[in-house]
Amino acid sequence: MRILVVNVNTTATMTQSIADAAKAVANKKTEIVELTPFIGADSVEGNYESYLSAVAVMDRVLAYEDHYDAVIQAGFGEHGKEGLMEICDVPVIDITEAAAHTAMLLGYRFSVVTTLDRACPLIEERLLLAGLHQHCASVRASGLSVLELEEDPSLVSQAIAQEAKKAVEEDKAEVIVLGCGGMAGLDKKIAEVTHAPVVDGVSCAVKLAESMVTLGLRTSKVRTYAPPRPKNVQYWPLHRHIFSSNTLKGDN
Amino acid sequence: MRILVVNVNTTATMTQSIADAAKAVANKKTEIVELTPFIGADSVEGNYESYLSAVAVMDRVLAYEDHYDAVIQAGFGEHGKEGLMEICDVPVIDITEAAAHTAMLLGYRFSVVTTLDRACPLIEERLLLAGLHQHCASVRASGLSVLELEEDPSLVSQAIAQEAKKAVEEDKAEVIVLGCGGMAGLDKKIAEVTHAPVVDGVSCAVKLAESMVTLGLRTSKVRTYAPPRPKNVQYWPLHRHIFSSNTLKGDN
Amino acid sequence: MRILVVNVNTTATMTQSIADAAKAVANKKTEIVELTPFIGADSVEGNYESYLSAVAVMDRVLAYEDHYDAVIQAGFGEHGKEGLMEICDVPVIDITEAAAHTAMLLGYRFSVVTTLDRACPLIEERLLLAGLHQHCASVRASGLSVLELEEDPSLVSQAIAQEAKKAVEEDKAEVIVLGCGGMAGLDKKIAEVTHAPVVDGVSCAVKLAESMVTLGLRTSKVRTYAPPRPKNVQYWPLHRHIFSSNTLKGDN
Amino acid sequence: MRILVVNVNTTATMTQSIADAAKAVANKKTEIVELTPFIGADSVEGNYESYLSAVAVMDRVLAYEDHYDAVIQAGFGEHGKEGLMEICDVPVIDITEAAAHTAMLLGYRFSVVTTLDRACPLIEERLLLAGLHQHCASVRASGLSVLELEEDPSLVSQAIAQEAKKAVEEDKAEVIVLGCGGMAGLDKKIAEVTHAPVVDGVSCAVKLAESMVTLGLRTSKVRTYAPPRPKNVQYWPLHRHIFSSNTLKGDN
Amino acid sequence: MRILVVNVNTTATMTQSIADAAKAVANKKTEIVELTPFIGADSVEGNYESYLSAVAVMDRVLAYEDHYDAVIQAGFGEHGKEGLMEICDVPVIDITEAAAHTAMLLGYRFSVVTTLDRACPLIEERLLLAGLHQHCASVRASGLSVLELEEDPSLVSQAIAQEAKKAVEEDKAEVIVLGCGGMAGLDKKIAEVTHAPVVDGVSCAVKLAESMVTLGLRTSKVRTYAPPRPKNVQYWPLHRHIFSSNTLKGDN
Amino acid sequence: MRILVVNVNTTATMTQSIADAAKAVANKKTEIVELTPFIGADSVEGNYESYLSAVAVMDRVLAYEDHYDAVIQAGFGEHGKEGLMEICDVPVIDITEAAAHTAMLLGYRFSVVTTLDRACPLIEERLLLAGLHQHCASVRASGLSVLELEEDPSLVSQAIAQEAKKAVEEDKAEVIVLGCGGMAGLDKKIAEVTHAPVVDGVSCAVKLAESMVTLGLRTSKVRTYAPPRPKNVQYWPLHRHIFSSNTLKGDN
Repeated sequence: MRILVVNVNTTATMTQSIADAAKAVANKKTEIVELTPFIGADSVEGNYESYLSAVAVMDRVLAYEDHYDAVIQAGFGEHGKEGLMEICDVPVIDITEAAAHTAMLLGYRFSVVTTLDRACPLIEERLLLAGLHQHCASVRASGLSVLELEEDPSLVSQAIAQEAKKAVEEDKAEVIVLGCGGMAGLDKKIAEVTHAPVVDGVSCAVKLAESMVTLGLRTSKVRTYAPPRPKNVQYWPLHRHIFSSNTLKGDN
Repeated sequence: MRILVVNVNTTATMTQSIADAAKAVANKKTEIVELTPFIGADSVEGNYESYLSAVAVMDRVLAYEDHYDAVIQAGFGEHGKEGLMEICDVPVIDITEAAAHTAMLLGYRFSVVTTLDRACPLIEERLLLAGLHQHCASVRASGLSVLELEEDPSLVSQAIAQEAKKAVEEDKAEVIVLGCGGMAGLDKKIAEVTHAPVVDGVSCAVKLAESMVTLGLRTSKVRTYAPPRPKNVQYWPLHRHIFSSNTLKGDN
Repeated sequence: MRILVVNVNTTATMTQSIADAAKAVANKKTEIVELTPFIGADSVEGNYESYLSAVAVMDRVLAYEDHYDAVIQAGFGEHGKEGLMEICDVPVIDITEAAAHTAMLLGYRFSVVTTLDRACPLIEERLLLAGLHQHCASVRASGLSVLELEEDPSLVSQAIAQEAKKAVEEDKAEVIVLGCGGMAGLDKKIAEVTHAPVVDGVSCAVKLAESMVTLGLRTSKVRTYAPPRPKNVQYWPLHRHIFSSNTLKGDN
Repeated sequence: MRILVVNVNTTATMTQSIADAAKAVANKKTEIVELTPFIGADSVEGNYESYLSAVAVMDRVLAYEDHYDAVIQAGFGEHGKEGLMEICDVPVIDITEAAAHTAMLLGYRFSVVTTLDRACPLIEERLLLAGLHQHCASVRASGLSVLELEEDPSLVSQAIAQEAKKAVEEDKAEVIVLGCGGMAGLDKKIAEVTHAPVVDGVSCAVKLAESMVTLGLRTSKVRTYAPPRPKNVQYWPLHRHIFSSNTLKGDN
Repeated sequence: MRILVVNVNTTATMTQSIADAAKAVANKKTEIVELTPFIGADSVEGNYESYLSAVAVMDRVLAYEDHYDAVIQAGFGEHGKEGLMEICDVPVIDITEAAAHTAMLLGYRFSVVTTLDRACPLIEERLLLAGLHQHCASVRASGLSVLELEEDPSLVSQAIAQEAKKAVEEDKAEVIVLGCGGMAGLDKKIAEVTHAPVVDGVSCAVKLAESMVTLGLRTSKVRTYAPPRPKNVQYWPLHRHIFSSNTLKGDN
Repeated sequence: MRILVVNVNTTATMTQSIADAAKAVANKKTEIVELTPFIGADSVEGNYESYLSAVAVMDRVLAYEDHYDAVIQAGFGEHGKEGLMEICDVPVIDITEAAAHTAMLLGYRFSVVTTLDRACPLIEERLLLAGLHQHCASVRASGLSVLELEEDPSLVSQAIAQEAKKAVEEDKAEVIVLGCGGMAGLDKKIAEVTHAPVVDGVSCAVKLAESMVTLGLRTSKVRTYAPPRPKNVQYWPLHRHIFSSNTLKGDN
């Protein structure tokens, strides 16, 4: 089976980290295809950038012309899943939800440790909409930006670990969720410090996507996520209007 | 003061209806500037189109180069308000919220009567995120599409009135909210049938926007809606990359 | 248009401060008529006094014999709005709700800073009943009584500012609501200290009342707030039974 | 021990029915003292009348000069309990809460059957504030006014029974709460029709009040229900200002 | 009337303390019969032991062959009440719920002070299921195990008092609930330290059970707690299969 | 990897159906070991039987002496998961939760169709505790008992399908969850009738269990689900005390 894993920002090295995390847990027969959006911010840290990413991810998926069996939206706390669910007829998994679903199976309460303070409300809102907030003890910010995550691994690891410890001790979390697509590699270090299971959304999303495909389950088309009604949509998909056709040659 | 009222779809006649509703209630000294997005669907009825509209509205506002004092996002149940709040430093009013805030001041429970069944979850989700769902008795669909609203006024009026009556009698609503930017003209007819106050989001949004400006209140920049961090954003704003520069000449 | 602004306590200087705040933001053509109840406590700080004020405000409004277009109940966190909504057929605005509605338009979470610790549950209960609690980060007490607010302005300002800062820093509030009718003048000072928008209920209530009147919207009479059924009510309104008729001469 | 049972309306025959219900279940050594307020409506069916009753009940209790061990506020869905809790230092029991607490011990969900449709929101609001709404399946109105309850017992019994049956069959209630102080005598008939336990608030309140006294438990004076701060209260208690002193002679 | 008070653990001295607390508040004519389960842990501190106790309590009640009028499940935060409600046709009172119901009548918010940290989620879950969590300010652990409660009374008293004080000062609790069947004797000491009413579940349960019996109220058999359907149950009740028949001789 | 799938009732044919459903979706390298409890009811339809099953499942798992990698509790809406999580150090998956987690990934709202009316509250309570109720549109009963499910397949299929259709049309469900371990084979028929995805808990649980094992994730031992403290537990595990040792010979 082939799973598209779509980054939400336009930083190719970040796409690569996400792909590595996905491939590390995928079944042998699962092909992971990583995609970077054509438009949008090089890191997504707020609603404006997140809305751009929602559209950029849909745009990128539409540019992928081969067959695929599932799509993973690999941005933590970002907008867009509901739109993808309408335009795809394969399972769509959002890493925020994948992580929360998994964390809820492992302990009484989980905490999310993310990047910047301003990202917390977005994550809280995604959990609230998904109905996955009741067992969320806290969403904590490490103070590090998305791009800083890639720069000094040991410093990052320390900052994240410190918030994770506070989550366990002060907020009574029993499971830690890594609240950014780019934190995947940190799980073992954080687990050592907290003695709690550490959940990475990308890994969880891969296993959930594989499960959905195996179980033959697809997004319901009964009402909310029915295919869009046929209508006139100006300048869409964006990549066809922004690029000359040969720019994308060879992309897929 | 000048208020931008931004339609969420690309249908110019709809923009005009919205502008009419806005101008009908604005103070004499308020200038209403109506804007139609450059990209997106000719009607917004679902998440995919709604996410496009979120970005298209931000894109359209960024293309407006003169001074303005407030922005109204004139799509009922649509995504995007939070992004606008980050990129604008004037008040931003979403018509879904404006209508709900107003309805809550007028009775114990309100119902929204909207277009298609598939739009209901979007409205429910906006109310839930905004924390305005507790006094919402129901979100009911008339079964009419957005564009049908413009075609046969008497048929439309009847279909909406029927659902509004059910809302009052079966769901115990005491106030009716018109759940689509294009329903503004129907308020009197529905009020006659239901004996309940009927609230139109565009009108309410204009008065709230004027009030915010008069009170000197602006979106908090403390955390969630702080300005975006400086970063590289590919192909943004969209209109600059989709159109040649002279296409937009004279637009503002 | 004429708006009645009714104080909840019997301290005339407090009524004056409230009237000043109301007049400062009212439209030119709006006439603000301030009223002080005949009965009740000289400051309202708890349920017993608040229930007295609920009845005293209704009693005072019934004693006003001229035409009016809207009523503002100018006590923060006090009982009584629902009763006023039944006996009036013009819009009724409660300053607690007015402030919360406004705050919710400006940021992700708001905090209320009020007088005494014992007043906090009343405010929490009003927000809960109104369905406006989801985005309330905290209700904090400054420890100052209502009457102390009038005595040493600089001390007051400092105590309120301190709690407002804690609300922003510890409770993640992004907007501050001044939780007492008598705090109106403090908004600018608090905004300077917190960098957050500061909302005063009286000002907000005036703009909302004006908006309702302009929009032609009145309290729904469908069910909950229908006029009282005709019945025998002993010794009501109170002022007719407590005072000899000439005591009130010239009052309106 | 002596328990004050205070009616919320000024209809003496209603006070008598309530007293009868109370005495029927009281311990031998418990003295029930029934009180009728001096002011207010002859039946309480809405917020305006309910606020009057809140003050009238406090006023009536203050006029009672002998010792007492507990107070029962005998109006279903009415305002006022929190005020009484501040001015009394004995236990205060509200019959709405007493009935809900009891019903929750007997089945998974309870429904309240009350008088008029307009009374339902008041009951819902009391249950919400008290945190007793989660297991409330519905609040249903029989369409009978409070005073009609006293007129044609067989008709009343039938109307209440019909709603109680619907509550069990349609709303999945397993316990029925009689939603009016004047319905006490109907419990056996309703139980026969529904096969569900039927709970009367006055009876439950008597047993709860006796239990509190026996257990030595009193209202907490720690914060919310601390005694009112000493202050100037105009024309209070009302009865002293409305009546000449000898009117009340011999009352207690 | 005869009330069975069933301990949840197999420690006979604990059963005795519970019986003492029950007898201290029971009416003269109430006979308290204390029962110790045949199987299960000598203290219940977690879900595994709590599930055992749920079954052990049902098993023990079924072994009691005489008449009884009510059953009290005397474990704080333990599983099992719903099963007992199905197999008994007399009132069943759980001490967690009894304490919470009582605490809610006495103040705006209550806190539970219990034994070990790991017991807190069980208590929170019982309160959530019972719909009694809204006014729960916190569930705090003293760090003492159930059996330590019996060993050094003065140390215990101090540790519990310390958490109770924090609950009042930091969590804004106004009432303290003793969160373990074995804490009954501590109420006066804690009340002295906190100035708040202190509620013991066993005492409250006795008064509630007596009240139910006096009011003639029994568990609803309408749906959820209907008697079990006749069916084959292997090796049940357990005591008949574990013991030879003469082991239990003379037990009741 | 080896996964234990434990039936909650003592009907061996039911265990076999569950095992078949599990094996149908398991990875090739996954060994499914089905277990039937030694004690308890031949069908579980209520709290009393469900509590027995909670203990019987723990007892049965403890009797299994070989290595295993995960445990599935295969009763829909039953008690016991939290106890298993304490005594096992491998992942524990409850089929109610597994089904709800999966359903939430596929549509906006799901409905559960189960056996008897009395089972609905148990399912509602499990979803509430797990924090998975927000997107549950309804829990509907087909009126069929657990054992009837095995008797007349076509009749069963029709009854379940009818409720599933109502769930989609009246309750706005977009996904159907089969609310009984014995309904696994019905998914295709129900999907045909409703056009909605149909989710079976056993299948979902197998994929989730496999995923947890692959991801190296285990139940958090930080607090709630820490191993039981060492203590004296009377007559436990039950099978050792009920059976002579040779009865169980060869069982594993």
